[in-house]
Amino acid sequence: MIDVSLLGTGGMMPLPKRHVTSLLLRHNGASVLIDCGEGTQIALRKKGWSFKPIEAIFLTHFHADHIAGLPGFLLTMGNAGKTDPLTIIGPKGTVRIVSAVRTLAPELPFEVNAREIEGNEETFIFAGLTVTAFRVQHTITCYAYKVELSRGGRFDPVRAREAGIPLKFWNPLQKGQICEEDGKTYTPDMVLGGERKGIKLVYATDTRPVPVIAEMAEGADLFICEGMYGEPGMDDKARQNRHMTMQEGAALAAKAQPEMLWFTHYSPSLMRPEQFMDEIREIFPRALAARDGQEITLTFKEDE
Amino acid sequence: MIDVSLLGTGGMMPLPKRHVTSLLLRHNGASVLIDCGEGTQIALRKKGWSFKPIEAIFLTHFHADHIAGLPGFLLTMGNAGKTDPLTIIGPKGTVRIVSAVRTLAPELPFEVNAREIEGNEETFIFAGLTVTAFRVQHTITCYAYKVELSRGGRFDPVRAREAGIPLKFWNPLQKGQICEEDGKTYTPDMVLGGERKGIKLVYATDTRPVPVIAEMAEGADLFICEGMYGEPGMDDKARQNRHMTMQEGAALAAKAQPEMLWFTHYSPSLMRPEQFMDEIREIFPRALAARDGQEITLTFKEDE
Repeated sequence: MIDVSLLGTGGMMPLPKRHVTSLLLRHNGASVLIDCGEGTQIALRKKGWSFKPIEAIFLTHFHADHIAGLPGFLLTMGNAGKTDPLTIIGPKGTVRIVSAVRTLAPELPFEVNAREIEGNEETFIFAGLTVTAFRVQHTITCYAYKVELSRGGRFDPVRAREAGIPLKFWNPLQKGQICEEDGKTYTPDMVLGGERKGIKLVYATDTRPVPVIAEMAEGADLFICEGMYGEPGMDDKARQNRHMTMQEGAALAAKAQPEMLWFTHYSPSLMRPEQFMDEIREIFPRALAARDGQEITLTFKEDE
Repeated sequence: MIDVSLLGTGGMMPLPKRHVTSLLLRHNGASVLIDCGEGTQIALRKKGWSFKPIEAIFLTHFHADHIAGLPGFLLTMGNAGKTDPLTIIGPKGTVRIVSAVRTLAPELPFEVNAREIEGNEETFIFAGLTVTAFRVQHTITCYAYKVELSRGGRFDPVRAREAGIPLKFWNPLQKGQICEEDGKTYTPDMVLGGERKGIKLVYATDTRPVPVIAEMAEGADLFICEGMYGEPGMDDKARQNRHMTMQEGAALAAKAQPEMLWFTHYSPSLMRPEQFMDEIREIFPRALAARDGQEITLTFKEDE
């Protein structure tokens, strides 16, 4: 399972009652963060989740509302007792950004590594999660992220019995281990069916509604998408600023058919994003105007 | 007069209900800011004062709780329509810090100048205020600031009449202008007494209670001083971390005899600083445990 917490939902700048967009994902006691604008450490403190187990911070792009919280965030991770290395991953230029961050936060009790995403798509594994960065379309280089947790095949006791596998090996085989006895080797594929549907979520902000987003979000458990504008007549502005309207986000969801769509990254002038949800749900019914601290636990489906 | 707003009162890190210490001073429509930790832009937005007229940002030192808010603060100044140059002043290394900040906030519609304080004491004039940086004692190079607004002498109508100065020149002479007519020159010193007591405030954090602070704060209208610790038994910790206790701050005030003492920069563990004020007021009676957004307008005294 993956615990999902959308720490903030603001775009452009932090407001007294709205933190800028940032996503924390927790799996098996480890975490990854996506984006870290100013005040993200305060949002996380409000949430009460720990700073220490964060293994990686992914950056979509280098606009300040996505990176300006890094110096303070890193220092607070240090104060929380983190000593394991942290990796910061983002577009080309991440090494330079991390170097500037270290100028502002020079003394940390853990190592900080910077990794720059290569090409249009690259996959990383942190906190047991498979995170794929894929290029989207903003005013500067920007990536969206697909996060996946895979699930092994179902254990098949009939096959195990037919293959004559001793009972004591059933459990280790289920866990993916290879077992040997009396010159015989038993492998997991002898008792497990094909891989089952895992968990998938996609986080896409700040971008035009390019088709790759719908492809990546296809059948996702959760699609988190920018909802910069909701009011009528903002199409030109969205195109010009390389953002999208909620209507455009909902149209992506209508193609991808995720279980849920959460909007985030609202324009500072958009104080009540939920007012557009009736209209939006005509395009895609399972849409939510997420709020700061919005939280869900995504689990494997029982019967799939 | 000077409008004083203590935007935050926290030390070390921002908390959900306490911004880090930062001081905004406004005079005649222009402003200066001292210190800019993470979230200072949010604190200023809560206050409702304008970002645009800030001419200079003074930094006491380079710990993140005093500088990590700069990238976002500068961008928000730009969004507020600032086009006049901004000067950032601080210890040796300010050029490097400003360069790192500009890496995180590259696109600004105004010029940013960096100035490094020379030696133990240097004076600057911004927003019509005379700001003197003076070296104090922390774990890294740190300056406190004395801010002064001078006041011209009182107009003396008896002297003006005796000197035969035409009535139409009285007002311009009071304002410091030189007037001429029929080959005669009239100068302000002919009608004005000696300079009167102006307004003075001192801002001192993070530092040991070194004697220069009391000297600078002598007779000040307002002495803003760190109150990192208040509970008993913290003397060693204060010495070790190069901070001071509220008792030490009050002792400085007892020497300097300012009109008022405000504490700020509380340790994150010190949630109710006002609980120590009874004890503190036995050392210096006019002490206040300031809160986020604490505000006062300092004016010239009527009868001095």
